[in-house]
Formats: sequence, structure tokens, C-alpha cells
Amino acid sequence: MNFGVIGYGYWGPNVVRNLAALEGSQVLAIADLGESARARAQKAYPHIRVTADAMEVVQSPAIDAVAVVSPVWTHYELAKAALENGKHVFVEKPFASNSAQAQELIELALRKKLKIMVDHTFLFTGAVRKIRQLLDEQVLGRLYYYDATRVNLGLFQHDINVLWDLAPHDLSIVDYLMETKPEAISATGQKHLNGHEDIAFLTLYYPDKVIAHINVNWLSPVKVRTTLIGGQKKMLVWNDLEADEKVKVYDKGVNITSQEGVYEALVHYRAGDMWAPQLEQGEALKRELQYFVECISNDKKPFNDGCAGLRVVKVLEAASESLEKRGSLVYL
Amino acid sequence: MNFGVIGYGYWGPNVVRNLAALEGSQVLAIADLGESARARAQKAYPHIRVTADAMEVVQSPAIDAVAVVSPVWTHYELAKAALENGKHVFVEKPFASNSAQAQELIELALRKKLKIMVDHTFLFTGAVRKIRQLLDEQVLGRLYYYDATRVNLGLFQHDINVLWDLAPHDLSIVDYLMETKPEAISATGQKHLNGHEDIAFLTLYYPDKVIAHINVNWLSPVKVRTTLIGGQKKMLVWNDLEADEKVKVYDKGVNITSQEGVYEALVHYRAGDMWAPQLEQGEALKRELQYFVECISNDKKPFNDGCAGLRVVKVLEAASESLEKRGSLVYL
Amino acid sequence: MNFGVIGYGYWGPNVVRNLAALEGSQVLAIADLGESARARAQKAYPHIRVTADAMEVVQSPAIDAVAVVSPVWTHYELAKAALENGKHVFVEKPFASNSAQAQELIELALRKKLKIMVDHTFLFTGAVRKIRQLLDEQVLGRLYYYDATRVNLGLFQHDINVLWDLAPHDLSIVDYLMETKPEAISATGQKHLNGHEDIAFLTLYYPDKVIAHINVNWLSPVKVRTTLIGGQKKMLVWNDLEADEKVKVYDKGVNITSQEGVYEALVHYRAGDMWAPQLEQGEALKRELQYFVECISNDKKPFNDGCAGLRVVKVLEAASESLEKRGSLVYL
Amino acid sequence: MNFGVIGYGYWGPNVVRNLAALEGSQVLAIADLGESARARAQKAYPHIRVTADAMEVVQSPAIDAVAVVSPVWTHYELAKAALENGKHVFVEKPFASNSAQAQELIELALRKKLKIMVDHTFLFTGAVRKIRQLLDEQVLGRLYYYDATRVNLGLFQHDINVLWDLAPHDLSIVDYLMETKPEAISATGQKHLNGHEDIAFLTLYYPDKVIAHINVNWLSPVKVRTTLIGGQKKMLVWNDLEADEKVKVYDKGVNITSQEGVYEALVHYRAGDMWAPQLEQGEALKRELQYFVECISNDKKPFNDGCAGLRVVKVLEAASESLEKRGSLVYL
Repeated sequence: MNFGVIGYGYWGPNVVRNLAALEGSQVLAIADLGESARARAQKAYPHIRVTADAMEVVQSPAIDAVAVVSPVWTHYELAKAALENGKHVFVEKPFASNSAQAQELIELALRKKLKIMVDHTFLFTGAVRKIRQLLDEQVLGRLYYYDATRVNLGLFQHDINVLWDLAPHDLSIVDYLMETKPEAISATGQKHLNGHEDIAFLTLYYPDKVIAHINVNWLSPVKVRTTLIGGQKKMLVWNDLEADEKVKVYDKGVNITSQEGVYEALVHYRAGDMWAPQLEQGEALKRELQYFVECISNDKKPFNDGCAGLRVVKVLEAASESLEKRGSLVYL
Repeated sequence: MNFGVIGYGYWGPNVVRNLAALEGSQVLAIADLGESARARAQKAYPHIRVTADAMEVVQSPAIDAVAVVSPVWTHYELAKAALENGKHVFVEKPFASNSAQAQELIELALRKKLKIMVDHTFLFTGAVRKIRQLLDEQVLGRLYYYDATRVNLGLFQHDINVLWDLAPHDLSIVDYLMETKPEAISATGQKHLNGHEDIAFLTLYYPDKVIAHINVNWLSPVKVRTTLIGGQKKMLVWNDLEADEKVKVYDKGVNITSQEGVYEALVHYRAGDMWAPQLEQGEALKRELQYFVECISNDKKPFNDGCAGLRVVKVLEAASESLEKRGSLVYL
Repeated sequence: MNFGVIGYGYWGPNVVRNLAALEGSQVLAIADLGESARARAQKAYPHIRVTADAMEVVQSPAIDAVAVVSPVWTHYELAKAALENGKHVFVEKPFASNSAQAQELIELALRKKLKIMVDHTFLFTGAVRKIRQLLDEQVLGRLYYYDATRVNLGLFQHDINVLWDLAPHDLSIVDYLMETKPEAISATGQKHLNGHEDIAFLTLYYPDKVIAHINVNWLSPVKVRTTLIGGQKKMLVWNDLEADEKVKVYDKGVNITSQEGVYEALVHYRAGDMWAPQLEQGEALKRELQYFVECISNDKKPFNDGCAGLRVVKVLEAASESLEKRGSLVYL
Repeated sequence: MNFGVIGYGYWGPNVVRNLAALEGSQVLAIADLGESARARAQKAYPHIRVTADAMEVVQSPAIDAVAVVSPVWTHYELAKAALENGKHVFVEKPFASNSAQAQELIELALRKKLKIMVDHTFLFTGAVRKIRQLLDEQVLGRLYYYDATRVNLGLFQHDINVLWDLAPHDLSIVDYLMETKPEAISATGQKHLNGHEDIAFLTLYYPDKVIAHINVNWLSPVKVRTTLIGGQKKMLVWNDLEADEKVKVYDKGVNITSQEGVYEALVHYRAGDMWAPQLEQGEALKRELQYFVECISNDKKPFNDGCAGLRVVKVLEAASESLEKRGSLVYL
């Protein structure tokens, strides 16, 4: 499988490194508008073609698939050009700037019988896969909430706000973990610096009293990547910054017994052992790209396909609308 | 100064212990409806009168001031009775069940020339006092946000939801720290167990783009007491669960320079030293009760008086209204 | 059971508070040479006799048992006087200043049919009891090592060095946990300030290649209370400063397979789940004092008796000898 | 500068990656005996010569300098061959298996006018450079102790014990930080698995009551990389596993005033602010290799030269001797 990669900024080098090391794949060309990015790429990979012209990559007959790792506002144009030239595409999150674009790309790929994979990397981490398994196997019991904090200093994006930058991670994760889809959304936040929100809070209402909350912030002095998940039977904390024991499962809970004729409900707290399951090791992006190669080779639809990307974009659009109205509920 | 204490449940023993140890104050009577609470009180303080009858405390001529450390729904009745009997009152947070009650108590105290102090204990911690000082001395610069997470397992209250139980801490803190008052509020949350919200998220909009966010949860497997505060010049993290270095001040920030004719703003990240100032040691409640005794002795109005308590109750009322409408903005 | 307590400095107030709250016990008298200590005691316990004269406590006919919570060099005299006056004694660790004193007290108690309990509080913590259980039930497998770090700033003792001050905790714990007794000891350290060692390192050699290491330091900027225990089947970390999950058991290990004819042994690393068992809650000192009352009431020999105290003192004496010779092995 | 790298196991890939990315240097050849290591190298660097024959690298006329990143017992032979062939050498730590070998290599390099650099990577970290600066500028005051814990699970070495594997890091650091050299050493430890010590404790006695302690362990369930450094004026904690704030400086200390005629010395504890200085960012190994290239280009003697490597080996030899005698002091 021959790859072209467009964008060699922050994330692009990781995509190139993994594609270059993967059995059965190689990178033939890298495109980036920045001169210093191109110099870095060429020094690290003397044998790979490096160019300023993304169209050269998109049109090269030797290339089977294109990874679009460029700013969000360019995703649509570049992915469209790649699909039109018969290339499979791997697109950075969020998939597109709006749902119309996402819809159009999905249809184009369908027509051309090509694969789209949206880079929802977290779905390939040992942590998220283990949490999904704990939910599937009913270890956590009925879900109560998902509460994520994803804050750090920068990196400020110039074309999108913090919601479009950081929330796609959690939105793709809840899309993957939850059995139902959100019904309504409330978002609050504030713009302090460059006219885009740099701090935002998102609440997603799901059926059956399930609630999700996402706290994203570009102006935090410390990096936090912590998610609490509460279930009726067990609760867990996923701290992605821990080197080991990223996921801790707590045998904790509250049982409330309402007895007839008793004024106050009886509350029992349960506090048992904590358990940190061993997680799958290795780089999530490597696993994801391997899966992309497999999906193409075996003509298999990836679960993180264009439709998954579209679902995330739709929530982002609704969240933007609510943010504008400072928290007013927007139905999905 | 002779004290009576009503309520010897979770917090009452701390109030009694501190009042008993304070120079110039003693506890003459403790009231609690629970038999086992009374037994515990009597065993620990054989020389103090222990009774089931709160009215006995409120009416005792030997008693100068009454601490009301009972459930929220009883605050109004008990504080009113105490004031009517000429006693100063120290009332647990939140001050009252609604703002009408709070208003009435304030007026009654005024008429009777008595002091009300609402137990906003955190305002007497070394951490909050240091943060206030950092703000006053312009160390943090213009304020961007206050973002608090206050979660743990239980204790479920039967008469109030998690917002009324846990948010008063942060609402009293922002009331104390901020130069302006909130203009509008959005609150979201969910009730999973006993008909009261057990998880809730609060956004307060202030003038000048200042924003506060408060995350409270009775269903968390872990206890978290972490607040991020972002300012233009510096940012801080207050982790109240750390034994030492509860407050860490980061010389971090983002400067955005817009240059004419330049398409993209230039973003400069600043990452300098971190600094954990030495905090005032000792128990906050002790300091608060000492201050209460001083305020009474010197006929001084405490800054955490009935009006401070009322401001917190008003925000709670607005938050409840927004919570009912799932995040819709409520103006204050 | 009527108690007298001698010493109301740092630890004494905890002993008094627990004895006063315990069912079936009360404190009749407190002795301390310090005026301010006596004032604090009297303010907190107006109904208890407070005196400067320890002999008054020791000789009072109303008192059944005496807690000696005074400096180490006074233990022998005070405990001896108490025993001679027919009182059971609870003695702070280390039991005595040397093994001859400890031996004499043991014999005196035996003659007088009185109980001695040495305050090895850690043996009553949920953590140490759980670790003992894990060893007894062969969960950890054959023991490899015990490695404890117990450091913080101060409190400097004037009569003893850091070894005699802090190491008794770990020495009593290994005495309780290990199936065998140490054969030899090597100790190193240094005196920086007041002529006593303020930093010291202890290695205890046990039969069957078991090794224990204890790092004690009065000059550390941070408090550390961490112990690693390695076994053939599992390993654990006990961090006593964690609020929850003080003990974490790791399903980790190394298996080495030597194959005939193969030059290099094959090394297999095993890394499975981590598990933090729920620990017994509540104050260890309360449990210990309760046990003391029971031992006296039922004429039962406490496991942390004078002999346990003597074993710790003997190791301390050997360690002091090795320390003098800068690490040279001293056989026990 | 053209490099050859011998050894592509755990550390070799980092050396190759850095040399390949460095301005002014390139890697011409990689040698490794292992087939899978060679395959990994060739996949990652299609344009570099990969061979099983180290002699090919050592003898290649195109190569200016050789990095020896192979097991300890091969260092002497390979470095010697490289020097004899006129190549500068960069040698993994510990420099050699004994001091005679180290001495011989130093002399050979001198004769041949070639550079030896021993890979004491930690000396190029922002943390160690900052600590050295704090010592040089008298911020810490007179030094009391250096106490390092460097433990984790594996990696078991087959040719050396844990002391020779892990302690060189700390020994090179104290060699760099301290103004004086150690006078005597005591080492204890135990062999549980493969006939080499897998846990060891080292005490180094320096002039002026300075003491260093190093705790190394291959059988720890958790990775710890924490060093405490105590000085008269300030103390610090260096936790190398922290993402940020690796070095924390505490304004803490103890002052002891001896007054004539006063029985007990007066002890004052000082506890002021904590401060985490911003550290130099970037990869230490990159900085070290850059420095190696500079030293060769400018004919400059690196401070981490063969003599620095030899000093570490000499301490290791003395430690081994003490270890054999279970802690007995060995003079250097």
C-alpha cells in the first residue's frame, strides 16, 4: 500500500513514522506548505519525495491512499480531490468544517467505492478499548455519566475554537462507548484571546438519564486528561496521563432502598476494592493505521468511517449553536 | 462567650471541638434529635449539657450565641428562634432554603442588633486567602476563568440536591474572590437515584468575559477538589487534597499579537517557573469561629454575614431554575 | 478501666482522646512537665485531673493502667514505677533506651502479673493487617524484599537519633510480617546538625535471601511514607500518605528459565492487573487501645508486648553499632 | 561527521535517530548481531548500510566516529578496535567492565589523539544542569546529602548486576555535582533470581559529612526515579518521571541554636515557598551527541570523557567489593 501524506506539522510526522514502519505499507510522498516542515521531513526521510504541492500527492498514480493531516478548513478540499483521483483517505479529526461537507465526502467515497477513515485515534487506545469491553460485559452496570476534562496550555488554532479542536476526541469516544445517541446539548464558554472560544463546557443529554460532560480549555496551566465514568455497579477513572494504570475500576456505589411507609430512603454506600486492568500496550495510531490498511485490503468498512466523523461534526454544530446562546438547549 | 450548638452529626463535632478549645468561648449545651449522636457528644464532653430539645438551647438565658449545624430545611426555623431569643447565630451553609427566608433572617438580626455569620469555612483557609491576595496584588492579572471540580462518593442529602449541597462552597469562594457579581447562569445535571440531582454542572457568566464553572457530583468513585484559575499574567491550580503545596502558581500564558497586514495572529506561549507559596497553617473553622467571637465582642459586621449567605442562595435559586430547563440561561 | 496518661506533647493528646472516647475506659489523670501542655489538656478536658507530677498518676489507687507517652529516656523509670505500683503499662515506642532496661521491665511485669503493651501503632493499621494477610495466604509468594522510605522534615529529637525515632515503626512491622528474624544488620548514616544522626540507612539480612532496607531522614523537604514489598508471585506498594488505595498489589514478576545447553537464561516479565484491596477503616490507635483494654480484661498476652518491644530495641542497638563502624555487618 | 553505530537493541535506535537528525552528522552504518534488530533498522533507514559485522563499521574508512551501544562486556574490545582504527568513540555507560580496561582505552585515545565520550546522558538533562547551577550559585547552601531511588521491573541484564546497570546514572551525576570525591563506600544487596544482585543499596561517604545513598532495584512493581538533595539553605526533590516540574526547590530547613547554659538546643524549622524552576527542554541525548560532534570538530576535551567514565567504574568496583562483604566499608 503506497501512501501520500499531506501536512507535516504537529501530527503529520507521527503518521509518516507509523506508515513507514508498518509491514505492507510505505510512504511515497509528503506535502507541506511550510519550508521548515519540508526540510525536517527530508532530513528524516532522505528517500521520500517531499513537495510543497498537495495536488502532486493527490494526483500521483503510484499512490493508493492519502492521509490528510492539515488544518480543518482544508480537509474537505483535499479529501475531495483525493477521492476524485481514486485514493482512499485517512482524514484528521474533526472530519470536516460542517456536516454538509462531511455528507458530500461520504457520498463521493461511496460512489467511487473508496474508504474514508476519520482519525479518531483514541478509539484505538488500550484504555478506550478496555472501557468499551467493561461496558459490553456489563461490569459497570447501567451507565450514569461520562465526565471528561481535557485541558492544557495551547495549542491555539487559528481557524477553529477549543470545542472543535479538543472536543472531537471525547465526542468520538462517547459515540463509540454509548449505546444510544445524544438527544440534546447545552454548551457554555468564553472567548478571551483571539475571537474563538478558548474555554468551553459541554453537556450532552442522552436517553435514560445518561449524561455526558466535556470540559475543554486551551488556557489551563496544567495538562489534565481525566475522565470519570459512573455506572450502577461500578465506576471508573481514566487518567490518560498516567504511565501505568490509566484505567482504575472502583467497586463503589450507592444503593438507595425506598421502603413503603419510611420517610427517608435508606442509603447504602458500597466501597470495595479498586482494580486497574492491564491494558493493551503499543501506539494507538499504529493500530489505527494498520486497521486502515486492512480495511482497504479486505474491502471492509472501518467503524470509524465517514459516518462516525459526520456524527461528531453534527454534535459540534449543535454545540456551537448552544454556545452562541450561552447554554440554551439545542436538540439533535 | 457561651455557645449552644444544634446538630451533632457530621460537622457539629468539629464546631463543638473548636468552640470548646477557643480562648474566651465555651459550649454550654448541645442539641441533637439522634440518640446515638447525643451519646457520642456526652461521652466526649461529660461536662456539657446534651439534649434532644433544640428549643432548650435557643431559650437558655446563659447562652449568648447559637451555632445551627443541622439540615438545611431547619436553618430558617432554628436561626429565627435563636435571633428572637436574642442570640447571635452561626449558620451552616447554605444559609437558608430560599432567599425569602434569608432576607427575613437578615432583617430580624438587624432589628435585634445581633450578628449572623454563615459558615463559609473555605474563606478562612490559607489557600483561599492566598488566592485572594494574589488577585488583589494583581499577580494573576486580569481574570479569565475559575473552574472547580468538587466530586466524591456521597454523602447523599435527603432534602437537597448536589448543587445545594456542594456548590455553596465554590459560590461563596467566587463571591469572595471576584470583583463583580455574576450576570447570568446556566446549569445542567441529572438525577439518577433519589429524585434529586446527584451530578450537576454550573456556568456563571460575569462581566468582562470572566467565566466560572463548577462541577459537583455525589457519584464519583474518587474525591477531587481541584480548581483552576486563569489570569492574563499567571494561572494557578488549587488542589485542596494535597497535604502541602495546595496552591501552585504558574508563570504561564499566551500572548497574541495581531499585526496589521499579517494574516495569522502571532501566538507566543510563555512557560516559566512554578511557585507554591507557603500558606497560612491551622484549621479554617477555628479561625472562622475565632473571628465570629471577635465580631460579636467588638460589634463588627462579619464579611461572611447574612448578606453573603443570601447572595449564595440567590445563585442557587437561579441555578435550580436553569437546571429545570436543562441549561437555559437565567439572568440574576 | 481507669487510665492515667503521662506526657501530653505530640502523641499524648491522641492517646487521651481515644481512651476518653472508648467504651469501658476513662482517663482520670494526665501528667506533663510543661505548663502550656497542661493548660491545653485542662481546657480540652475540664473534668480530668491534670498535674505536673507523674508520680501522682503512677501512685493513684484509682488508676488501673498507665500510658507512658513521654521521651524515650524516661520510659524505663516511668514504666518501672507504674509496674511497681501495680499498674499495667502502655509504652510509647521504642520501648526503652536499651535492651537491659527492656528485659528488666518484662521480668517485673511477669512477676507482678501485669501487662505491657508497646505502642507499635502501625500493626493496627488496615494496611499492615492486609499485608500480613496477603503474606499468610501466600498471595505474594516467597518474599524477596521489604524496602521502606520514611522521611520528612523533623521533628528532631534531642535524646535520640533518627534511627531510634523513625526506624522502630518499620522494625516493628518487619518483626510482625516476617516469618524469620534478621541475622545481621548494616547501617550507614550521617550527623549534620545536633550530634545525632539525622539521616540513616539500614539493611537487614534475613535467612533465605530475604532482605529489608529502611531509609529514615529528618532532613527531607517532603514527607514520604512508601514501602515496596517484592514477592515471587506478586509485588506491592504501600503508600501510607494516600487517602485511599494505600496498598496496591501488582501482578508483576520475573520468571527466569534456565535451560540446559542454553547460554543465556530466558527471562519472562509478567505484567498483569493491579489491585488495591479495600482496607479496614478507622483509627489504628483506637483499635490498639481497645485491644489493650481487652488484653487486660481477659488476661490475654498482647502480641505487641514487652518482648516485641525488646526485639525492636535489640535491632536498634545492633544498628547503632554498625552505624558507628559505617556499615560494617553486625550479627544479631 | 560520519558515524557508525554498533548495537541496535534498546538504546541504539535513539542514538541512530538523533545522529541522523543532527545538523552536520549522518549515520553511514549500523551493526547488530541480531537479525530482527537489523531488519528493524533497515526498515526505518532504507538508505543506511546495516550489517552483522561490527568490524566492518570499525574499519570503514568513511567513518569518523563510532558509537558503541552494545553490552558492557563488549565495550572494551569494540572501543579499542575503533580507536586503533582511528575513530573517535562514544561508549555506553558503564564505560568498561573494570578500571584496567578503562585506563587502557584512555591511554590509547590519548596516544591516537582521539576523543572518548562516555554516555552519561543524565548530565545533559535540564534537571541535572539546573541542579548543578543551584549548587554552583550557592542556592542550596552547604550540601548535606544526595539520596536517589532508581527502581523498576527489569530489564535484567545477563552480564552485570543491578548495581553496574543502574547505579552508573547516579554515580555519574554525583561525580558531576559534588565538589569532592567519595572517600569510602558501603554496599548491601541480594541476589534473588539469576545469580546477580537484583536489588542493591549504596552509601558513599564524602568529606565534610556529605553522604550519598543510591537505591537500585530490578524487582520493583513500580518505576521510581526520585532523588532528594538536602542543603543547609534549601532542599530539593527531583522526580524524573514528572512531565513538568521535575525539580522542586523547597525553602525548608532546620536551624539549631546552641545556647550556653541551655540544656536543650533550640530547633527552628523553616518552611517557606516551594519553587519549580523552568528547565531546559529537549532531548538530553540530542544535546550530548551535538556536544560530541562539537568536541571532535573543535578538538575539545568533553567533560564526560574517559576519565569521568573511569571514576564511575572505580566506584562500582569498590561497591562490588563491599557488596561481597555485606556492607563493610571499602576505602577509595
